[in-house]
Amino acid sequence: MYKTRLEHVCSRLTKMGLTQMIVSDPLSIRYLTGVWVDPYERLYALYLRTDGKHRFFLNNLFVVPDIDIPKTWFSDTDDGVAVIAGLVDGNVDMGIDKNWPARFLLALMEHHPNVRYVNASSCIDGERAIKDEYERQKMREASLLNDVCIEKAAAHIKAGMTELECADYIRSLYKEAGCIESFSTIVSFGANAADPHHEPDDTVLKPGDGIVIDMGCEKEGYCSDMTRTFFCETADPDYAAIHDLVRSANEKAESLIRPGVRFCDLDKAARDVISEAGYGEYFTHRLGHSIGMQAHEAGDVSQGNPAEIQEGMTFSIEPGVYLPGKFGVRVEDLVLVTADGCEVLNHADKHWKVIG
Amino acid sequence: MYKTRLEHVCSRLTKMGLTQMIVSDPLSIRYLTGVWVDPYERLYALYLRTDGKHRFFLNNLFVVPDIDIPKTWFSDTDDGVAVIAGLVDGNVDMGIDKNWPARFLLALMEHHPNVRYVNASSCIDGERAIKDEYERQKMREASLLNDVCIEKAAAHIKAGMTELECADYIRSLYKEAGCIESFSTIVSFGANAADPHHEPDDTVLKPGDGIVIDMGCEKEGYCSDMTRTFFCETADPDYAAIHDLVRSANEKAESLIRPGVRFCDLDKAARDVISEAGYGEYFTHRLGHSIGMQAHEAGDVSQGNPAEIQEGMTFSIEPGVYLPGKFGVRVEDLVLVTADGCEVLNHADKHWKVIG
Repeated sequence: MYKTRLEHVCSRLTKMGLTQMIVSDPLSIRYLTGVWVDPYERLYALYLRTDGKHRFFLNNLFVVPDIDIPKTWFSDTDDGVAVIAGLVDGNVDMGIDKNWPARFLLALMEHHPNVRYVNASSCIDGERAIKDEYERQKMREASLLNDVCIEKAAAHIKAGMTELECADYIRSLYKEAGCIESFSTIVSFGANAADPHHEPDDTVLKPGDGIVIDMGCEKEGYCSDMTRTFFCETADPDYAAIHDLVRSANEKAESLIRPGVRFCDLDKAARDVISEAGYGEYFTHRLGHSIGMQAHEAGDVSQGNPAEIQEGMTFSIEPGVYLPGKFGVRVEDLVLVTADGCEVLNHADKHWKVIG
Repeated sequence: MYKTRLEHVCSRLTKMGLTQMIVSDPLSIRYLTGVWVDPYERLYALYLRTDGKHRFFLNNLFVVPDIDIPKTWFSDTDDGVAVIAGLVDGNVDMGIDKNWPARFLLALMEHHPNVRYVNASSCIDGERAIKDEYERQKMREASLLNDVCIEKAAAHIKAGMTELECADYIRSLYKEAGCIESFSTIVSFGANAADPHHEPDDTVLKPGDGIVIDMGCEKEGYCSDMTRTFFCETADPDYAAIHDLVRSANEKAESLIRPGVRFCDLDKAARDVISEAGYGEYFTHRLGHSIGMQAHEAGDVSQGNPAEIQEGMTFSIEPGVYLPGKFGVRVEDLVLVTADGCEVLNHADKHWKVIG
């Protein structure tokens, strides 16, 4: 599995005209080698070469399994970048990982000032975006678990609880299920939901409030992410109608997904549904984002992304409407692109529902 | 306060021969302006100019208070780096923040290929390292809270508990006290403690085990960090003697702290104590690290850092001895450098103690 992944990435590097790259994202390194290290602020890199002479650069504080790639160790008192600089090819272009900190990149540039440095993360991100069979299964499992947990959460939430209590309850469900949050759970009551990124606070749930729950877990290295919107005890008909509208936008986009369709066209399709009903200006964010080993991965479902969808990709479809000071609703599923459509990874009912 | 901090940083930039810098660390931006944004993967920058014409670059999804610095907004579909490139001076050197992701830096370099880019974070880190009165008080409060919590934890831990249960209990103490972990709490039993960065797992505490607890909280934006080593029910005399040794190394280093002493000399003093007793090879990490708004800040107490200690600095003193497969011990305090010595911010007893 890792051998294939390395080969695919190298063949993408070759297509980009590169023969070498420094990979620094610990998740990408795990994806390519199975080795997991959390380097904190320390230097950690997998040096890829299209001739197959890859090399690990490791601080001797890191504990790693014995694998097939040669390792160069350095200590906290060594100049790690100088160690890397001494072993890379200083005469040809160098691929750089997109989030490599400037302090390392600028130092490497001083060692090799005539090299052209190129953001080459797309070579890895493009591979990571297309999930293989193993990953598809993990993505299904993480979302199934999320389905189960949101049903339990919906059954538990009552008027009088605070947002923080609900978020804590969801975390306890994840813990019980042996997984962790893939991002900080969002629970928003009433007008708080008009901020799509509201952080749960001490707001108390009242009858009539809308309830937005945006939650996801990480299970065996893969992430889920889903949003459902409920009403507490009773639903305002106007708001319920907006919920129906947002759900139709979600369903419209999902119905169009298949290989070859462009991400921007999905965004447009959902946005058109909402705009035609007069709420376009209240749908303030992109339609979705890629997901996998991280809750947000490279590539999004937005007007700015004309790339074509490919089989094996997993991303969110999450239209929303946010009425400042009043109400917010979002309906979000994850989807896995199949040969001729998509598999919606979430199965929790997405019609509006009264709870509490 | 913020005005003074900005002026100090600009005067450091001037000394470095710079007239402009892009600050990207959200904590540094908070330090300099009071504005807090968690940008996730999005572009977020404070552009500093020594002529005082600073400017904020903000995604319109960010919610920020109204402050004195002019703002330039962009959206998810804009090319944010192009926006910045259009407003900075493309004819003089540019200071760059040390962790600015390569994808932004490389893109900016394409816009202004003739500018010399310089890691200028030391101008901010140097200021952040020296705590003002407000910050010293916050550092004291965070460590006092940590003292209280470790005493409670020590009273709670019994044979039969797992490392994870203990770590969860410590988190619950922090929560009760209205603060959060400043880093992931380390609880290591027996031989697990031979890995200084062991992650708590399902290992069960047995009589005779050593217990390393490395814990810290963040209160009102400032961090604590302390390690104590206990024994469960009974202490092996050999291990207890190693604990005494490590404690003396800690105390030796703390006794030497005062402005003008070099960080590397502190490391050496503690290391010498341990080496002279024959355990030098088992003290595998640096003596300490700076701390403040983050648990690990720029500047460490290591053989590689010849910088001189200054009044107002806060850092950890944490010698350890790690015997693979057997046992580990670490004794860590935070210290605040005073005019003629240091204030040890932790008051929890650091002699070895039997608990459980």
